[in-house]
Amino acid sequence: MTRVRIDLFASLDGYASSDPTPDNPMGADWGSLTAAYAATRTFRERVLGDTSGAGTTGVDDTYAAAHFEGIGAEIMGAAMFGLHAHPGDPEWQGWWGEQPPFGTPVYVLTHTAPRPAIPMAGGTTFHFRTGAIADVLAEATEAAGGQDVRVGGGVGTARDFLRAGLVDHLHVMIAPVLLGRGGRLWDDLRGLDRTHKVTSEVAESGTIHVTFTR
Amino acid sequence: MTRVRIDLFASLDGYASSDPTPDNPMGADWGSLTAAYAATRTFRERVLGDTSGAGTTGVDDTYAAAHFEGIGAEIMGAAMFGLHAHPGDPEWQGWWGEQPPFGTPVYVLTHTAPRPAIPMAGGTTFHFRTGAIADVLAEATEAAGGQDVRVGGGVGTARDFLRAGLVDHLHVMIAPVLLGRGGRLWDDLRGLDRTHKVTSEVAESGTIHVTFTR
Repeated sequence: MTRVRIDLFASLDGYASSDPTPDNPMGADWGSLTAAYAATRTFRERVLGDTSGAGTTGVDDTYAAAHFEGIGAEIMGAAMFGLHAHPGDPEWQGWWGEQPPFGTPVYVLTHTAPRPAIPMAGGTTFHFRTGAIADVLAEATEAAGGQDVRVGGGVGTARDFLRAGLVDHLHVMIAPVLLGRGGRLWDDLRGLDRTHKVTSEVAESGTIHVTFTR
Repeated sequence: MTRVRIDLFASLDGYASSDPTPDNPMGADWGSLTAAYAATRTFRERVLGDTSGAGTTGVDDTYAAAHFEGIGAEIMGAAMFGLHAHPGDPEWQGWWGEQPPFGTPVYVLTHTAPRPAIPMAGGTTFHFRTGAIADVLAEATEAAGGQDVRVGGGVGTARDFLRAGLVDHLHVMIAPVLLGRGGRLWDDLRGLDRTHKVTSEVAESGTIHVTFTR
């Protein structure tokens, strides 16, 4: 049975992204949100291609490894793929280099004219879709072949799926920092703790891992 | 050395109080914010006067007991004392009955005309002050005689002290619920994690206890 899964970063005060600057498309605070994840062995291996075995192996790494398990297709927003930062570049292939870490079909939601699919090394193919999120999810679910569909982000796309009641498993890595600015994660999600079972766990890094599962 | 301490409740989405209704002066969501605390043995004993030994004795209770330790004076806002709910009642003595659980001088911040002090059973005396929070804190610190001063709330008063940089220890009990409405705790506190050391711990109840200490 395919589940729809989301992993997100947030600060203790509920900011899931920070305002981009010309020098830093992820925003000045992205590093403090993601530091514990970026320190894990799984991130180093799966995203950076570092097979030396370096990196943390505690609670943060357990969640990081789960992020990559059992995913058959991915959905992401146009901003996460980089269409907003590179609007006029038909050659843009995302931020992840020649071999993106997905290894599955990736459906990029866009309101602009559809682009042809981009097959990449390592099993990733980027598809561009302008339809409703439920329709794109149906297509991704079929492509996932019984595995899970991950909604990769950004936070706006994740919130669209959450508010539409389409998400079976949400995992939030809460960094123990107060940012006071950025994109808000939690607005309009009242009651998610009643439709989903909530767990919380603190990692060695101080990161608070919260999950909502139905 | 007197420290200034605050204990607050919050939801996972950062709401520290809920909008009051005629039937419920603490707001409809107050029960879900405070359920784990209200279940502790310390709360039952110290606030309800239940000496039967009933109540939880885990992590939640450890923090609850710390809340009552070493306090020599208390400061609270007019709303917490009930002046807003009972504006025209010179006989109003707070929500806590004949013997409030403070057992210390309690300084109530008010913008309206000062009232005479109200001595209560059990060592609590309510004083009403219209001055600046730093001045009231100086008076409370002297009254505390080397013990700590607690800023009891509500959230607006707590935030005034936090933003003024007057707080040495903040403890937040984060209930794993999403309220989507109410009084916001975290706004304008960016960087508190840099001036204070942060700890986080999850209780058996699922409550996340976060502390900021300098």
